[in-house]
Amino acid sequence: MADDASPHISSAVLDGLKAVVGESGWSQDPDRLEPKLVEWRDRWHGATPILLLPKTVVEVSAIVRLCAETRTPITPQGGNTGLVGGQIPKGEVLLSLEKMRAIRAVNTDDDVIIAEAGVTLAALHDAATAVGRLFPLNLASEGSCTIGGLISTNAGGTAVLRYGTMRALVLGVEAVLPNGDVHHGLKRLRKDNTGYDLKQLLIGAEGTLGVVTAASLKLFSRLADRTVAMAAVTSPKQAIALLNLSKAVSGGAVEAFELMSRQGVAFALTHMPGTREPLAQPSPWIVLIEMASAETGATAAAMERLLEQALAEGLIADAAIAQSEAQAKAFWAIREGQSAAQKPEGAAWKHDVATPVSRIADFIEAATTAVQAFAPGVRVVAFGHVGDGNIHFDVLRPEKGDDAPHDALRDQGARIVHDIAMRCEGSISAEHGLGTMKSKEALRYKDPVDVAAMRAIRAALDPLQIMNPRVLF
Amino acid sequence: MADDASPHISSAVLDGLKAVVGESGWSQDPDRLEPKLVEWRDRWHGATPILLLPKTVVEVSAIVRLCAETRTPITPQGGNTGLVGGQIPKGEVLLSLEKMRAIRAVNTDDDVIIAEAGVTLAALHDAATAVGRLFPLNLASEGSCTIGGLISTNAGGTAVLRYGTMRALVLGVEAVLPNGDVHHGLKRLRKDNTGYDLKQLLIGAEGTLGVVTAASLKLFSRLADRTVAMAAVTSPKQAIALLNLSKAVSGGAVEAFELMSRQGVAFALTHMPGTREPLAQPSPWIVLIEMASAETGATAAAMERLLEQALAEGLIADAAIAQSEAQAKAFWAIREGQSAAQKPEGAAWKHDVATPVSRIADFIEAATTAVQAFAPGVRVVAFGHVGDGNIHFDVLRPEKGDDAPHDALRDQGARIVHDIAMRCEGSISAEHGLGTMKSKEALRYKDPVDVAAMRAIRAALDPLQIMNPRVLF
Repeated sequence: MADDASPHISSAVLDGLKAVVGESGWSQDPDRLEPKLVEWRDRWHGATPILLLPKTVVEVSAIVRLCAETRTPITPQGGNTGLVGGQIPKGEVLLSLEKMRAIRAVNTDDDVIIAEAGVTLAALHDAATAVGRLFPLNLASEGSCTIGGLISTNAGGTAVLRYGTMRALVLGVEAVLPNGDVHHGLKRLRKDNTGYDLKQLLIGAEGTLGVVTAASLKLFSRLADRTVAMAAVTSPKQAIALLNLSKAVSGGAVEAFELMSRQGVAFALTHMPGTREPLAQPSPWIVLIEMASAETGATAAAMERLLEQALAEGLIADAAIAQSEAQAKAFWAIREGQSAAQKPEGAAWKHDVATPVSRIADFIEAATTAVQAFAPGVRVVAFGHVGDGNIHFDVLRPEKGDDAPHDALRDQGARIVHDIAMRCEGSISAEHGLGTMKSKEALRYKDPVDVAAMRAIRAALDPLQIMNPRVLF
Repeated sequence: MADDASPHISSAVLDGLKAVVGESGWSQDPDRLEPKLVEWRDRWHGATPILLLPKTVVEVSAIVRLCAETRTPITPQGGNTGLVGGQIPKGEVLLSLEKMRAIRAVNTDDDVIIAEAGVTLAALHDAATAVGRLFPLNLASEGSCTIGGLISTNAGGTAVLRYGTMRALVLGVEAVLPNGDVHHGLKRLRKDNTGYDLKQLLIGAEGTLGVVTAASLKLFSRLADRTVAMAAVTSPKQAIALLNLSKAVSGGAVEAFELMSRQGVAFALTHMPGTREPLAQPSPWIVLIEMASAETGATAAAMERLLEQALAEGLIADAAIAQSEAQAKAFWAIREGQSAAQKPEGAAWKHDVATPVSRIADFIEAATTAVQAFAPGVRVVAFGHVGDGNIHFDVLRPEKGDDAPHDALRDQGARIVHDIAMRCEGSISAEHGLGTMKSKEALRYKDPVDVAAMRAIRAALDPLQIMNPRVLF
């Protein structure tokens, strides 16, 4: 990782870049740049000498080649929804693929869609729906986040349990490598064993090994039969037992299994208009379960079987099956509001950790105890994709406290939480990536053997380290 | 890729290697070596100065470190079931992990099993079954093939449609890198976005980037309800239409969708004792479909719905649903015998190609026409995992011909078949890898940009090119 000094980019280089993309392909207008230089929670504010807006892979290639020749660093940016600062330039050329937003092809025999990097997740969903198929990745930011960013950060979301992260959904990518060469990998193949899987290296590389310009992505059958339920459990441990039972009972029909604490549900009920208590009684923890199937009535039957058995075994105290799509949406609104509903409550330390599923309960218990001992009065909101071992562990300032002193403890708080995640055999970044926020910190936790291997790979592909130089190792 | 000259390995190096593994950890006994030097179809015969049989990752690390220090090339070998020669040494040290066959851990909360590289697929299946879980990869060679080889070749098999290849089933690996360092990556995490995914680089690398010594692998719920059927279609094109219908009707329950030509079925009926015609009438093509579900009766109902609809739409001419496990096994025996049943018919050119699903019919038609024009009288046996676009396209000598002249045309035949696969946007190796057989040929088809990137990565991790030097690029 390069140091933090802002790079100097000469006007000759800027002129060269402008010539590559033409009049409509760049901007230095502060008003145009501003939304791309601020992270949405306002945690990072960046700077760039120029915003480049190429329209074709040929232009991206020419940009990167010129940058390589002149050792000019580049920060690629997707929909600017990242949470770890990886998309915010600090003097680098800012490369946005927002003008590359074509759906190049859709094929239902292959169940493949080929989309350019600037296509939003919502637009991709629409394009899949238009041919009677499903693209299964779901994120709250779907209206803004783009295919390029989703691939570069290996995005996850709420349906990973059934469909996997982006890593599992990409069949091939077109990408401009750090020397400007184009990797033409838009394959529609399900199987191809002819050398290293370059796309897997680019997925999750946070823009350090090249710029993804388009991707071929898997489509799935739409599953019309769908059932959503909420269930009350007394602890994360019980949630895991319920997860196991649901996997056994449903045979792969579980799409989402999301845990929420009472604190998070209470914030949603307070701050999100239209939400209401999902179960008769408040519960210390609740789980949202969604099942989907092609067979009419199958998920309602499976969900009923699951909840009856769970009640009989004492795993759950209460449950409610959504009786309409509106009710299902209302259940999901509580889950999707877990992050936004914290905002009125003041400053928060946010952590995106994963552990093995079997260690989630240990982690939540130990981390909650530790942060409350470190900063008395803090309010923990733990929620997330428990089926993937992924917990968003957020720590809010004390109810009557101020933001500033809480913010001041953020790094120490993160250290405590991350240390515990690692003791639970976990990861300090489940789905957000490392960005500029966690890259240095990650060195504390990553095995030096792995870091050395990653550095060697990066140096091999980007010897001048022009691609997102402040990110990763 | 290094040249083909046999390397010289000094007796000092051999003594050093012997010292690392101790008396029971090596052999130079020709009888002990012989089975590991011959490919099972007898297409390659190798040579090695020593067979090393380490028992621990520490020993593997010491072996590789000594080899790196002395520039001694290594060929790793799993169960010696490979079909492209990648496991056969030609003067290199032969490294077998057959003594590393512990199941290190099984955890049903995490649905993870941690197995050493020498564990056979059959033993892994047994260990999963013992805890009520499923490891879904299925291959005919399960009694011999090992975890290390399955990972290094990104094995596929008959359940890829539902569960993916090894690439989708590995959560983490322990591997000795080419400098002797150990990558301790036996994670049980479903999500981890903290840098490049090193395991994905090792999967399918055919032993060129390190030696996989153990892996953490995903387990799944066992699906008790299972239905197998055979259906008669008139062409591969109809098979694709049936595949689409089956995906729509079953909602992910299809585990296998295997196409067979009449020629292949006829050979199975002739040469495999106990097999019988699966349908009332011989059909030019038949499809084997397997569905699985957790819900009793669900797959029989879905299969009936599918076949009724397919009959009504004229997609299939006839179908039979297996009425017992014995009958299901009999159906599978015909599919699994497609390769072995060719042997009595004489010499064959074998091709393991993939195309997009939508191009399978084009490929089979064009390739059949082309090989029959090139070598009149040859008999084509095309079969495989049509749901993944993977066709094993085998070309047998004319019925009354001799083996030798057919063998002599093998490379030209492969060229014809592979050119057509590439014109159909395909791959010349769907699941077997490149090995020594196809690595040079692959250079004809791979984009030089990709080859350059792969060479750069390889040079970064194995600058002395000691790991399986004659394989890949």
